[in-house]
Amino acid sequence: MNEFELISQYFTRQQRDDVVLGIGDDAAILSPPAEHELLVTTDTLIAGVHFPAGTSAYDVGYKSLAVNLSDLAAMGATPAWATLALTISECNNAWLNGFAEGFFTLAEQHHVSLVGGDTTRGALSITVQCTGFVKTGQAVRRSGARPGDLLFVSGSIGDGWLGLQTLQGRVTLTEKEQQAAQLKLNRPTPRVSLGKMLQGNASSMIDISDGLLADLQHILTASGCAAELEQQRMPLSLAARQYLANDGELLALLTGGDDFELCFTLPAERQLLAQSFAKQAGCPITCIGRILEGTGIALVDEKGSQPLTAEGYRHF
Amino acid sequence: MNEFELISQYFTRQQRDDVVLGIGDDAAILSPPAEHELLVTTDTLIAGVHFPAGTSAYDVGYKSLAVNLSDLAAMGATPAWATLALTISECNNAWLNGFAEGFFTLAEQHHVSLVGGDTTRGALSITVQCTGFVKTGQAVRRSGARPGDLLFVSGSIGDGWLGLQTLQGRVTLTEKEQQAAQLKLNRPTPRVSLGKMLQGNASSMIDISDGLLADLQHILTASGCAAELEQQRMPLSLAARQYLANDGELLALLTGGDDFELCFTLPAERQLLAQSFAKQAGCPITCIGRILEGTGIALVDEKGSQPLTAEGYRHF
Repeated sequence: MNEFELISQYFTRQQRDDVVLGIGDDAAILSPPAEHELLVTTDTLIAGVHFPAGTSAYDVGYKSLAVNLSDLAAMGATPAWATLALTISECNNAWLNGFAEGFFTLAEQHHVSLVGGDTTRGALSITVQCTGFVKTGQAVRRSGARPGDLLFVSGSIGDGWLGLQTLQGRVTLTEKEQQAAQLKLNRPTPRVSLGKMLQGNASSMIDISDGLLADLQHILTASGCAAELEQQRMPLSLAARQYLANDGELLALLTGGDDFELCFTLPAERQLLAQSFAKQAGCPITCIGRILEGTGIALVDEKGSQPLTAEGYRHF
Repeated sequence: MNEFELISQYFTRQQRDDVVLGIGDDAAILSPPAEHELLVTTDTLIAGVHFPAGTSAYDVGYKSLAVNLSDLAAMGATPAWATLALTISECNNAWLNGFAEGFFTLAEQHHVSLVGGDTTRGALSITVQCTGFVKTGQAVRRSGARPGDLLFVSGSIGDGWLGLQTLQGRVTLTEKEQQAAQLKLNRPTPRVSLGKMLQGNASSMIDISDGLLADLQHILTASGCAAELEQQRMPLSLAARQYLANDGELLALLTGGDDFELCFTLPAERQLLAQSFAKQAGCPITCIGRILEGTGIALVDEKGSQPLTAEGYRHF
């Protein structure tokens, strides 16, 4: 099978109406909506770094798109188009079928068209780029948090990291909770609907890929603020509670990566509105603290307030 | 150095005015021009496949952008924005400096802004995505060639392949010609100005990355036509003439990859106009044959007309 047969067999699907020309020429031709800005993001997944070597092809395909949709969600954008640069060591039909099924299952949920790409031979690596839209001036940046704003996260915190630990045998939980955490690691739900609703309401937003503390620190640095987190309010899954009950460390959950939840701030008077959006989007949100003047992150527990250091995943 | 310091040190430059927000948030915010379509292309370069392992960092950076600009040129587009997914095995300052210098030297020539990316650790691999514009409906596709059209190529044919052969010691030329061919391999000139001028004039266009015959065949398949090439007219460099004089095969030059020239068709009455564009763009073009009814490619030489098979580079 040559490159063109491979693309035609696995990666050619029905396209959105704004795709004038999809896969098959030197470049795709796309028609952007008037009076909108484009949001563009790209992420690479490397076997053994961004997913364990034994991850199923379906999950690799799903996750390679999910992490990009999560970035667009964090800007409040509506996703539209993706390109895929796929490097594989061999042309394995079962693997390619599984990969394409995972990728397109998520793409179809979000009405995203794959409009171009490149397939090459080498160590397994996947780079997806996604483009979405917002009305001009409406993207939610990291830099808009203000002292007095409330701090929220979607979903629960620490499960992606916990899934990896259980896969690698460093943490043991009950079978059911291990599966739940591993599902969160392999098939994170990008919070696209919630992100879109928060456009015009959240003062700042980021998706949690490097760990809550590291990503929150990006908001604080960009906004010139500090934050106070309340330990009691942190949304934790049953898996995370089981991990803590077995002498696990809360800090590990707050610094572990791969949550792909949204972390955002908003003025206190919009709290009820945000809760109604969360209900509509079918995605719980939790107020975990507030934005203060100053720098850094403090954690408030029964013993009082203590400063935290935020170290995300370091690639180098 | 962490990922953010690396990006800030090597990859943050002055941005175009239509970049509302560049590197540093979850996604870039870009403002597309009204009444234009977007052209989107992506290419991956893998060490040892798309460039020899010893290629200089400058050339790798230059070429990773050049091959994408060449795709946009083949649609007649004006390039604007790029993203870069860079996977490197270690954080080597000298290598990163050279890579960034090569990338941005070419980017600045074409007024292209790097607006986002991802840096990861792994076997050296570079995926660049480029976006450009055309006025709505003006992109030049592969599918518009018609019987009677003349067939042109820019520059000369076979030098990229010849550069690789001399680097790998399979072909020996004089020192000067080897250097010329290797320069063409490592720093191809994307024919952006010529491509833009041909918009509205060429009936079909493609860039030659897989070899002239394979890429011409893409035009013929998309357009439902055949082509006749005239051997005597083929534009060959001094290096290529030297190779042929030493018992080299013309077919190797016509099927070798990495030319990154434009191959295009146009109605005969626009021939003089195209020649004036070529002069303005500072890039020679040559009429190498014509489009016929039927299928396949024939080569006309002193012995008559013979059919050719077009096998491009096969990744799988």
